[in-house]
Amino acid sequence: MKIAFIGLGNMGAPMARNLLLAGNKLNVFDVNPGVFKEFAELGATVTGSPREAAQGAELVITMLPAAAHVRSVWLNEDGVLAGIGKGVPAVDCSTIDPQTIRDVAAAAAKQGVVIADAPVSGGTGGAGAGTLTFMVGATPELFATLQPVLAQMGRNIVHCGDVGTGQIAKICNNLLLGISMVGVSEAMALGDALGIDTQVLAGIINSSTGRCWSSDTYNPWPGVIETAPSSRGYTGGFGADLMLKDLGLATEAARQAKQPVILGAVAQQLYQSMSQRGEGGQDFSAIINSYRKPK
Amino acid sequence: MKIAFIGLGNMGAPMARNLLLAGNKLNVFDVNPGVFKEFAELGATVTGSPREAAQGAELVITMLPAAAHVRSVWLNEDGVLAGIGKGVPAVDCSTIDPQTIRDVAAAAAKQGVVIADAPVSGGTGGAGAGTLTFMVGATPELFATLQPVLAQMGRNIVHCGDVGTGQIAKICNNLLLGISMVGVSEAMALGDALGIDTQVLAGIINSSTGRCWSSDTYNPWPGVIETAPSSRGYTGGFGADLMLKDLGLATEAARQAKQPVILGAVAQQLYQSMSQRGEGGQDFSAIINSYRKPK
Amino acid sequence: MKIAFIGLGNMGAPMARNLLLAGNKLNVFDVNPGVFKEFAELGATVTGSPREAAQGAELVITMLPAAAHVRSVWLNEDGVLAGIGKGVPAVDCSTIDPQTIRDVAAAAAKQGVVIADAPVSGGTGGAGAGTLTFMVGATPELFATLQPVLAQMGRNIVHCGDVGTGQIAKICNNLLLGISMVGVSEAMALGDALGIDTQVLAGIINSSTGRCWSSDTYNPWPGVIETAPSSRGYTGGFGADLMLKDLGLATEAARQAKQPVILGAVAQQLYQSMSQRGEGGQDFSAIINSYRKPK
Amino acid sequence: MKIAFIGLGNMGAPMARNLLLAGNKLNVFDVNPGVFKEFAELGATVTGSPREAAQGAELVITMLPAAAHVRSVWLNEDGVLAGIGKGVPAVDCSTIDPQTIRDVAAAAAKQGVVIADAPVSGGTGGAGAGTLTFMVGATPELFATLQPVLAQMGRNIVHCGDVGTGQIAKICNNLLLGISMVGVSEAMALGDALGIDTQVLAGIINSSTGRCWSSDTYNPWPGVIETAPSSRGYTGGFGADLMLKDLGLATEAARQAKQPVILGAVAQQLYQSMSQRGEGGQDFSAIINSYRKPK
Repeated sequence: MKIAFIGLGNMGAPMARNLLLAGNKLNVFDVNPGVFKEFAELGATVTGSPREAAQGAELVITMLPAAAHVRSVWLNEDGVLAGIGKGVPAVDCSTIDPQTIRDVAAAAAKQGVVIADAPVSGGTGGAGAGTLTFMVGATPELFATLQPVLAQMGRNIVHCGDVGTGQIAKICNNLLLGISMVGVSEAMALGDALGIDTQVLAGIINSSTGRCWSSDTYNPWPGVIETAPSSRGYTGGFGADLMLKDLGLATEAARQAKQPVILGAVAQQLYQSMSQRGEGGQDFSAIINSYRKPK
Repeated sequence: MKIAFIGLGNMGAPMARNLLLAGNKLNVFDVNPGVFKEFAELGATVTGSPREAAQGAELVITMLPAAAHVRSVWLNEDGVLAGIGKGVPAVDCSTIDPQTIRDVAAAAAKQGVVIADAPVSGGTGGAGAGTLTFMVGATPELFATLQPVLAQMGRNIVHCGDVGTGQIAKICNNLLLGISMVGVSEAMALGDALGIDTQVLAGIINSSTGRCWSSDTYNPWPGVIETAPSSRGYTGGFGADLMLKDLGLATEAARQAKQPVILGAVAQQLYQSMSQRGEGGQDFSAIINSYRKPK
Repeated sequence: MKIAFIGLGNMGAPMARNLLLAGNKLNVFDVNPGVFKEFAELGATVTGSPREAAQGAELVITMLPAAAHVRSVWLNEDGVLAGIGKGVPAVDCSTIDPQTIRDVAAAAAKQGVVIADAPVSGGTGGAGAGTLTFMVGATPELFATLQPVLAQMGRNIVHCGDVGTGQIAKICNNLLLGISMVGVSEAMALGDALGIDTQVLAGIINSSTGRCWSSDTYNPWPGVIETAPSSRGYTGGFGADLMLKDLGLATEAARQAKQPVILGAVAQQLYQSMSQRGEGGQDFSAIINSYRKPK
Repeated sequence: MKIAFIGLGNMGAPMARNLLLAGNKLNVFDVNPGVFKEFAELGATVTGSPREAAQGAELVITMLPAAAHVRSVWLNEDGVLAGIGKGVPAVDCSTIDPQTIRDVAAAAAKQGVVIADAPVSGGTGGAGAGTLTFMVGATPELFATLQPVLAQMGRNIVHCGDVGTGQIAKICNNLLLGISMVGVSEAMALGDALGIDTQVLAGIINSSTGRCWSSDTYNPWPGVIETAPSSRGYTGGFGADLMLKDLGLATEAARQAKQPVILGAVAQQLYQSMSQRGEGGQDFSAIINSYRKPK
């Protein structure tokens, strides 16, 4: 299959590599030409713009850092919509607000192009290993078309509804994740301050009604879960600044939908404080250190 | 075994019944004599005070509404410590702050009595069915003594550490539970407002990093989990006023331990607002209605 | 003076009228032609676009609802920058985020046009009476030019610094105002619940360290300040939805500046809840009803 | 006048000195005998217990650190009520919860003693200079009796209503004060991050709707108000740990009254975090440093 892949950053590059490994032909583009040499050697066709990449492709995939990039890559004069063929399936895998992808989809629809959104979870590790989860907002037909291709980059391909619902699913999940992680941090730090063994406390929580992924899989207290970032100095997981970005998307989407999100807004500000202190590069579970007495 | 059981309220009465069914002899007491007739018919010995109930008992169990009752039932002139024999094991199953039970334990230690705390989860349903979880703070010796008796009233008997740690485990778990439930409510209400199907959203969350008991077992959105209180009009579960009580215990214990709990404090206030509106008798998952547009 | 005035809504129309009354000649434009007849009768020249309005004007003033309108009115093909003469002074009086006006100013600078921002406070009442406060971000030269014209529409013309600082001053003040009003509401409702006379409580606060405009001038408890909206059913003041808009600008500007604003974020969500309940049209001091027991 | 004065700590000692200077005779007591020598030299009669101090006194004044001390000093076997004469006026000047003083007053009433509460503001400086503000909860008759005596220790003697209302007035004011100070800190830090001069910003706020004591008299940004603690390294004002205590009283009183206080609860936790970091001895306006980028 001939695929245009636009956006070869920390996530996009390993995703594109997996598509090449699976035997697809790729047109690639990125604003940063630093990766072009590698992709040319892997057999991809390096192009000069999103428009050029899209020309002649049977499928277009974009993976970009933020909404502004999605708008320009798709809608600019040199953008995807200027090059893509009528009826060619397309999917944006960026994590952005639902409204932007709906706007882009409306523009695309005018020229007979149907777009899906498919933000991912799993991080750069999952992108490299091809084990990402894709949350897909698409028509049933487009989902059926995309499913086998996305399965070359991920393990779990979930259909969430129409275009935009992939983003909604991701930001709602991550809103809850951010709140849960702060909640687990408060509970663990309180338990420690009151004098219970944290390993015992985690065990009780994990077999009781406080049970959650942030406690039983990714517990922020060092040593409770050996494989969690907290047990290796809060490195190598999902960075606090990425959580901050997602909470920002959630509260902004909530604002547009006129929907209150109180704990989510507080969690966002707590991550903002952490980032302001220069700790935004640590794993997001390091938020627990905001609750522990400095040594 | 001859057991003194003090406190025959909504929780205590079914617990005491299970002890009678298991073949124990009971001395019972309550400030409300309304239940005396029933217990006398069941073969229990009705007594005139905690002191009298404790006299001659081989084990003393108390199950009371709040810390003030625990202090008076144990420490007053007519209290348990005035009647209990030296070396007789004792356990308080009330949900109170950790400091109170530690104070009572210190007073008891002066006369050679060792006390455990063993707050429960499982509600009146679990109390009746004998399926409660007991979170036990006790010396290893006392835990070994209590374990078989508690097992006559519950299914899951967890040793949390020394006296007080049972309360700590419970309030830390319920602190997290309160936060999680508000978090799930915000995520579900936001998803609905943005236009994703709530059943689909819950499915994604429950197989992703937002997964938690409040979502996968007790989801506050009606119809998502057929067995949850949300699917039967928010009746018959864990009342919002009980959650409010536990969050009050958690923030007060945090205050005493000089430990911040930010989301916990906000969650407490949100439940306080719910209670002020007259909705404190509903299941605590009805907090989601604070986030949904009134119809 | 020949002035282009663009944006004849609830605020812009009375401001433009005051400029006409002061003897200026006006080119006017609005997307809604409903007000054209009135302004033509008042002697203004009705034009077909912002570009046309700006042509030949000695000063350009815009008063628009939100950032998106400011961008299009200034930067579109038919926008102000397409018609304004080199060196002509210009000022945007909209309440928007600081970044947007800085972006527009940067675009204007490329063609030799210097822009100020001058958001107002005082509401439609102040606009009609010519008693607005203008918070002006401008070079000293431009401020000197604008000052006498703005004085025809307002009473208090404050120079805040360079372009953008007018917006900053306004959103920082209103961030604090929103927090203060919620704070006064909590203090008054708590005092009432505990049993102090609210008139007495307000008197003590107003001569003590809790003293603030939201208490001594605009107290949310009915009857405390006879001239406040709370004493006339929360009508006729600064609407809760306008406060919600300003808190949204503040938290969004904070997000861009990577600056935490915790109480501000919570206040925004509380106003969002009020708006969701359908009370967004009431004066913003009606937030106190979120804290009072329903009757 | 023969006055019993119990509690000679940082606040009580200078207050008692002022009463001696005004010509009264004093019976004094404190649990810490370190101050007895000084007071004996000043002519006071040192006694062995609150009971003994109260015997023969025409007025009893207590000034104690917390509710537990008030209960024991008044109600213990050796307490004030065991020694005070029938009909002797009495006043507690401690800052505690309203319920405790109401309980003590109820106990006193049984033996014909009427008590007032009169918590103060003004700090140790005001205590020494005799410029305290007293917020008095008392019957009109008792207030009339107390007023001239309190005026020997303070400048502003405010009648708030019946017993307990002094505490209510103080905690409601300080609840608002804590919220306002955090609000001003957020507004000033945001303005600085966005690029406005903080002196200019404070000037605008102080002549606008954000105006409050925390901004115009006690601004937390260094240099804005030369006489504020922020301009001398956050020393010598009202300590953060004292604000934390008062916010704890406010949220606890709110809990008992079933009254939500959302921003107040968050402000309490922010001060708790500050205290946990070891900054509780700084002036409470140093909370702004939680919002400023570390240097």
